[in-house]
Amino acid sequence: MNRPLILVTNDDGITSKGINVLVEAMANLGEVLVVAPDSPQSGMGHAITVGNTLRLSETKTFNGVTSYQCSGTPVDCVKLAKHYVLKDRKPDLLVSGVNHGPNTSISVVYSGTMAAALEAAIDDIPAIGFSVCDYSPSAKFEHVSDYLEQISSHVLRSGLSQGIALNVNFPAASKGPIRGIKICRQANARWKEAFDERIDPYGERYFWMAGDFINLDKDLDNDIWAISNNYISVVPTQFDMTAHHIIQSLKKDFKLED
Amino acid sequence: MNRPLILVTNDDGITSKGINVLVEAMANLGEVLVVAPDSPQSGMGHAITVGNTLRLSETKTFNGVTSYQCSGTPVDCVKLAKHYVLKDRKPDLLVSGVNHGPNTSISVVYSGTMAAALEAAIDDIPAIGFSVCDYSPSAKFEHVSDYLEQISSHVLRSGLSQGIALNVNFPAASKGPIRGIKICRQANARWKEAFDERIDPYGERYFWMAGDFINLDKDLDNDIWAISNNYISVVPTQFDMTAHHIIQSLKKDFKLED
Repeated sequence: MNRPLILVTNDDGITSKGINVLVEAMANLGEVLVVAPDSPQSGMGHAITVGNTLRLSETKTFNGVTSYQCSGTPVDCVKLAKHYVLKDRKPDLLVSGVNHGPNTSISVVYSGTMAAALEAAIDDIPAIGFSVCDYSPSAKFEHVSDYLEQISSHVLRSGLSQGIALNVNFPAASKGPIRGIKICRQANARWKEAFDERIDPYGERYFWMAGDFINLDKDLDNDIWAISNNYISVVPTQFDMTAHHIIQSLKKDFKLED
Repeated sequence: MNRPLILVTNDDGITSKGINVLVEAMANLGEVLVVAPDSPQSGMGHAITVGNTLRLSETKTFNGVTSYQCSGTPVDCVKLAKHYVLKDRKPDLLVSGVNHGPNTSISVVYSGTMAAALEAAIDDIPAIGFSVCDYSPSAKFEHVSDYLEQISSHVLRSGLSQGIALNVNFPAASKGPIRGIKICRQANARWKEAFDERIDPYGERYFWMAGDFINLDKDLDNDIWAISNNYISVVPTQFDMTAHHIIQSLKKDFKLED
């Protein structure tokens, strides 16, 4: 049997520690191809590069692993991998990360890590985004490397429902032993931005986006709860953004027949 | 009674024709505030500016309407409007667009227009993204201006369920008379990219992203069908990306108890 083909990307950039850990874990499971951003792309969500050019070049970043760096977003990387680098060969799995910082709750909509996974899911490629809840560039990943392999090999064996990508968040290493895995929903939470207003050396105003994270969710079945209680959270996510449960009431509301 | 406060943004930039049409329509319904990108931001999805600075400056783009241009993405514009320009005053409605080009089916995940609407929905602000299925910078909007007012005033009166934003697409003017409104789901469709590979004047390779749109949906309840049949499509969209219907089977699959 051929070894499975595993496509690896991230949003912190190809030189980050997290992607290095992920490539090492995946090399135990199959043939690995890396196509990742040449610079940090945090918060890029599902952005793609239109109206501008893209660069792609082969690198020697990882020992014995074919890898490319791309000037674009995480989703650009997946598109270039699918439709240019691999041409007609379909990966058996896409993994994205390991992100430095959580992608729980509302952060999933801003996440380049998860957008890359969902971009694979659009083309029926089983996909997983991995994040460790530690923003530090030197975040520790030793406590998650076995789980990276276990969860990925499980998905390689069992597949995922069509259109689904897994959003996997790990507690930070400093939190102590992991208690297991919880399948969760995205917590109801939001960011309340506070813009830090400054004056540049030319007398002009500029801003840094900052702010506080506000958890509005008191239930126990969500990803924030799981992480707070030292579980790994696994949220099945989808790119179908339709609020199906609203369609019938909206028809009534607009006085439209079926 | 105070006139409602309507926040307007878009992703084609503050000087585009589409936002001008939208501002004119909204001025008939309430007090309008514009915070929009200073340059085209198509395909930016839910991207935000982290790790870099933002600029915001007042402009005189619209007659008698307070307006600001921002160096960031559509979602940055909404965040700056909510948490900096308006401080504690909450808009009664956010409208985004009118986009030059469709945001039907899978395009919704790449759309800065719809990301701006969903960003408002995160903070419980009723929100609508409007698009005309015509990419031309000189696209005609006369055939939709009554509908912009009708749909917006309906939402101002009736509100929307929490966490929901409407994705409204209009047929191009060239398609003839509009037959009415259909409440739809997002069609199952995807883009198949073809990267146009070129060599720059310095001998280096670069790419333009291009490609074909592939509709895989044969049903009649989706937005592509509605637009193809000259209806306005209205899709309720949500920022909860959890695939709730998968949670139970995933628990079994991972051999986890409830």
